Amino acid sequence: LPSMQTSRSQPCPSFKLREVASMYFTMIAVFLVILVVALQGSVPRGSDFPYKVPLDPQGLLELSWNVSYPEQAVHFQLLVRDLQFGLLFGMSDRGEFENADLAVLWSDGHNSYFGDAWSDAKGQLHMDSQQDYQLLGARKAPEGLYLLFRRAFSTCDPKDYLIEDGTVHLIYGILEKPVHSLQAINISAIHRGLQRVQLLKPNITVPELPSDMKTMEITAPDIVIPSQETTYWCYMAELPDGFPKHHIIMYEPVITAGNEALVHHMEVFQCAAEFDSFPYYNGPCDSKMKPNRLNYCRHVLAAWAMGAQAFYYPEEAGLAFGGPGSSRYLRLEVHYHNPLVFEGRRDSSGIRLYYTATLRPYDAGIMELGLVYTPVMAIPPGEDAFTLTGYCTDKCTQLALPAAGIRIFASQLHTHLAGRKVVTVLSRDGREQQVVNADGHYSPHFQEIRMLKKVVAVFPGDELITTCTYNTQDRSRATVGGFGILEEMCVNYVHYYPQTQLELCKSCVDPGYLHRYFSLVNRFNDEEVCTCPQVSVPQQFFSVPWNTFNRDVLKSLYDFAPISMHCNKSSAIRFPVGTASQPKLHSKTPGPREKK
Amino acid sequence: LPSMQTSRSQPCPSFKLREVASMYFTMIAVFLVILVVALQGSVPRGSDFPYKVPLDPQGLLELSWNVSYPEQAVHFQLLVRDLQFGLLFGMSDRGEFENADLAVLWSDGHNSYFGDAWSDAKGQLHMDSQQDYQLLGARKAPEGLYLLFRRAFSTCDPKDYLIEDGTVHLIYGILEKPVHSLQAINISAIHRGLQRVQLLKPNITVPELPSDMKTMEITAPDIVIPSQETTYWCYMAELPDGFPKHHIIMYEPVITAGNEALVHHMEVFQCAAEFDSFPYYNGPCDSKMKPNRLNYCRHVLAAWAMGAQAFYYPEEAGLAFGGPGSSRYLRLEVHYHNPLVFEGRRDSSGIRLYYTATLRPYDAGIMELGLVYTPVMAIPPGEDAFTLTGYCTDKCTQLALPAAGIRIFASQLHTHLAGRKVVTVLSRDGREQQVVNADGHYSPHFQEIRMLKKVVAVFPGDELITTCTYNTQDRSRATVGGFGILEEMCVNYVHYYPQTQLELCKSCVDPGYLHRYFSLVNRFNDEEVCTCPQVSVPQQFFSVPWNTFNRDVLKSLYDFAPISMHCNKSSAIRFPVGTASQPKLHSKTPGPREKK
Repeated sequence: LPSMQTSRSQPCPSFKLREVASMYFTMIAVFLVILVVALQGSVPRGSDFPYKVPLDPQGLLELSWNVSYPEQAVHFQLLVRDLQFGLLFGMSDRGEFENADLAVLWSDGHNSYFGDAWSDAKGQLHMDSQQDYQLLGARKAPEGLYLLFRRAFSTCDPKDYLIEDGTVHLIYGILEKPVHSLQAINISAIHRGLQRVQLLKPNITVPELPSDMKTMEITAPDIVIPSQETTYWCYMAELPDGFPKHHIIMYEPVITAGNEALVHHMEVFQCAAEFDSFPYYNGPCDSKMKPNRLNYCRHVLAAWAMGAQAFYYPEEAGLAFGGPGSSRYLRLEVHYHNPLVFEGRRDSSGIRLYYTATLRPYDAGIMELGLVYTPVMAIPPGEDAFTLTGYCTDKCTQLALPAAGIRIFASQLHTHLAGRKVVTVLSRDGREQQVVNADGHYSPHFQEIRMLKKVVAVFPGDELITTCTYNTQDRSRATVGGFGILEEMCVNYVHYYPQTQLELCKSCVDPGYLHRYFSLVNRFNDEEVCTCPQVSVPQQFFSVPWNTFNRDVLKSLYDFAPISMHCNKSSAIRFPVGTASQPKLHSKTPGPREKK
Repeated sequence: LPSMQTSRSQPCPSFKLREVASMYFTMIAVFLVILVVALQGSVPRGSDFPYKVPLDPQGLLELSWNVSYPEQAVHFQLLVRDLQFGLLFGMSDRGEFENADLAVLWSDGHNSYFGDAWSDAKGQLHMDSQQDYQLLGARKAPEGLYLLFRRAFSTCDPKDYLIEDGTVHLIYGILEKPVHSLQAINISAIHRGLQRVQLLKPNITVPELPSDMKTMEITAPDIVIPSQETTYWCYMAELPDGFPKHHIIMYEPVITAGNEALVHHMEVFQCAAEFDSFPYYNGPCDSKMKPNRLNYCRHVLAAWAMGAQAFYYPEEAGLAFGGPGSSRYLRLEVHYHNPLVFEGRRDSSGIRLYYTATLRPYDAGIMELGLVYTPVMAIPPGEDAFTLTGYCTDKCTQLALPAAGIRIFASQLHTHLAGRKVVTVLSRDGREQQVVNADGHYSPHFQEIRMLKKVVAVFPGDELITTCTYNTQDRSRATVGGFGILEEMCVNYVHYYPQTQLELCKSCVDPGYLHRYFSLVNRFNDEEVCTCPQVSVPQQFFSVPWNTFNRDVLKSLYDFAPISMHCNKSSAIRFPVGTASQPKLHSKTPGPREKK
């Protein structure tokens, strides 16, 4: 291998890439055995790394990758613009640097080394006994050093992160000083950060696009990004007068060059049709100057988050916009994440809609699954993984879905700040058929619309069961369901076709049973929880003396009690389903890594 | 490789050993690719397979093995006395042929094949995508064919069984007809069976034995094994008059040649010292002829089960027997397992005790950990894995153990028929320190005294927490704690030194809290469970209308309620500890295969 120099002129060592042997290092080995690199495997052909994301806000580290489902592996290409004495790149459960799985490139000033490492609960680095970040190559270019490496989804090394569908928390660190060994790296003292991405992008065939396709860009009008960490920018756009019904069949981000690391996510909302007009606005969404009416622009037309690519509707369907009964007003919302507080950056980012006047056979629709927004569903304080489950029952799908069923092709998971995991499964005759969408590393700060790997067909009589896992360890009182940012939600917005009247299929516990719970807590604990009717459910929850028993019994209640079902048509008219006993799965199909 | 013939004269194919490639077979491959065998790895040196067990009652299959902890692998040597068209050998959770991990040798009448396979939930065989039973060799001998193969404890193949400490259920099957493919084997139609062994024997250095060591054989007096599947045979033996105190420092089985497959387990009990004499008896333990006084012979001196080797006491300790205050009477109990109902087999099996008059520094003792025998600890019906936990609290060890602590060197786990797993952990300052003994595939039919891999030191203030997992899926009413065979126990008899006065360190739930549970069930379920004081706890449990809520709340109660502690000296005198709040582990050390 040729020796490599970084592209900048500052003092830095020559980088001979070496690699630590995939050997088992016994405890008595004081120094690690270092072997000269034998590059493992072959470099992927061509420059096909279709996915790209900046890792740090300055854009010093830029990650591109591809996913090979036949190989069950990810190929990474990491561009290091300003290499100093090495870097860390890796993955961890929620972006923490403790208990992380890391590829480390480090230099002692003379030689450089590459190895698969892990950090323990205290953040101390250790060489992995099994080397699973396989270095495939390194290439110097004017823009920096390209490192190519490969990682299998699952390595069977218990110290390694298991790459799964959904959110992956990538972490990075930059070594600005030489280090004499991996163990000498003080992970808490380095320049470091995290980036969330959907690493395992679905391998979807791009549908054929019609020849009459047109585009429309909904972009910020050359604004100045505020010099503050977080800004939600609102900009109102308008469809042409008399714009007839069209189908949106695809959309993609338009990012102003140089701002790739600042534009965190963007959404285009359509405003409510009941208002004839909406005021123009271009400014921060939380400004007092923002007209209140903009709160009625909430129907999602398009959503993009960092690392996402173009979104395609299935060939048979498109998202209707324009025409009578549909508002001409659109609201663009851009979340700028500017932690380094750059000043004066101008931006015209937004979303490019691809649409056609030749309507496809079906209108696409969005349905809300999960829990009703009600305080009867609550999470005790101090929980690390409390789950709540919302049902879309067989009775509701029986009443509301067409005989030929619907096809779910995309999903957007939603909770507030305590959400940690979300999963929706499809159940038929009490048996789990398939997972609709699951995110075991869900973050409320990364709510993408995700195309599903496989379209899910749902028929009348099927059930859709959505379970959210919450962490309330930093809270001292119960977290109840509701709209507030410190209240919780458990929602999966599923995108499907053909559109039906069913807009919402959600549940909550039967309130009568919750009342029995409060009485039981009263009697069992020799403490007084006021169960008088004039006290609100949140107040009752706040007065429960939380201990493992009261927590466990609440869990048991939510697992056992009948549910109240909300099976709603548009404009909040319910299909008549009422209270139901809780759907139970008779058997679950074992997960991919479950031991038999 | 030479072609191999079986040793008998009956028609059978020549056995060219071939092996199925360790390749990933895609679903479209109609025929498996078979490669000529390339023997993997090297055959272990010497004939060192120290452990041996017959697999079937006729002794047609005999398994020997060794355990390499540095390699984390087991080497198997399987002697097939009467090879026909192949055999299956493998492991499964509890000895079932569904969801099993199997090495298969099969012949189509012309060629023979060897492969690592697995069976699905319906018992259908499939070739494993990863071949982890590695064939090391095959050897023809006058007594039959020897197959040598190797298996790592953990293979990382989700279809493979994970070999862990404790009981392993070995399964075997004999192919009596040619089969054209692995898939063609009808696993339910073949001659098959199971054998339980402790596969991962501890790698213990044999302590030095004194020169004045003597032996004494407690063996059946040339009896005729009854021609019935199960016999517990009782035989009374006597120590010589005036036999002074000695230390038993070792014991081993004495098995009559030819009966290796029939003698399932044996125990030597010492009788109670309060009776001056015991009647002679030699006959089945369940006979009406058996004198009742024999029920007072329950103090275990030695216990052996199939597949076990000699039992050694640690160098510093021995088990006292003989001398004043110790009964001269011993009872031998032999469990004969004779499923093929052989008639007229004579047997003189038993146990050979090795003892010395030169007393070692410490007497060894036995302490009972786990749950008190009381109906307040109960298991609802229909449970597949309900756990109950018994505590030996810090208060009790503080009062009863010497400052220098005790050393636990062996353990015998005990439950009745619903027991499926047992584990005892040592906790200090609320943190788990180590596992004392664990059996994740525990069977009530295989209760060996097991030497621990590592002696466990227990100090005053430590806690010993014993958890049992039960399966009551075949029961329609609650299983309460107690002495009856259909009641349950959760006990770990730990063998330790130096002997202390503490004979029993066990707990149960505070009965007052259980009473609150019955009241709560009453109120919540709108059904009447009689909580009046004249109704017994078992009756109250039997009248609970079991559903997931009542089950879960009972679980929560057992996790939460204060415990009543039994910290007993010999002759049932309690150390004064009383009721305690439940010890809680602040953090558990993650298991070896737990994801970080």
